[in-house]
Amino acid sequence: MYGLIGRMLAAEGKREDLLRIMLEGNAAMPGCRSYVIARDPASEDGIWITEVWDSQEQHAASLHLPHVQATIARARPLIAGFDQRFETEPMGGVGI
Amino acid sequence: MYGLIGRMLAAEGKREDLLRIMLEGNAAMPGCRSYVIARDPASEDGIWITEVWDSQEQHAASLHLPHVQATIARARPLIAGFDQRFETEPMGGVGI
Repeated sequence: MYGLIGRMLAAEGKREDLLRIMLEGNAAMPGCRSYVIARDPASEDGIWITEVWDSQEQHAASLHLPHVQATIARARPLIAGFDQRFETEPMGGVGI
Repeated sequence: MYGLIGRMLAAEGKREDLLRIMLEGNAAMPGCRSYVIARDPASEDGIWITEVWDSQEQHAASLHLPHVQATIARARPLIAGFDQRFETEPMGGVGI
């Protein structure tokens, strides 16, 4: 399995709008076992995203899915940047 | 929902033993939607744990479950510490 943990920063005052777009954008993605979108309670603009995929290749391929590309296009103007990014090797647990 | 992202550090040379104990310790935990145990490929000793719970109270209560206490007792001698810890407010996504 392949995992990602990252924190996205919304443009000022745009976190709730960005969350709404991202939460609407979660149609099926092949190989995606978990994709959790979370508000960062420690900041005004942070959004944590934690992902588990069957493989790194399936994660990469997901970025080319039409509905993912549409979500990226809608979200991009509301994103200021990313300040945390960790790759992981998920081994197991609950819910994956 | 209540979420946690944390990185645990295994004692030197003990990561695989610690992973094995943690992966065996995942019997049912009320209110737990996701609990992902992952190797940190960027270090020799890091283990990422990402959790989604129905509530912070259910996470706290889980630490008192007999099987969780047993896992903690087995794991503790192999844990050197924790160097990352983020609380989150999961909003939705895939697999929770």
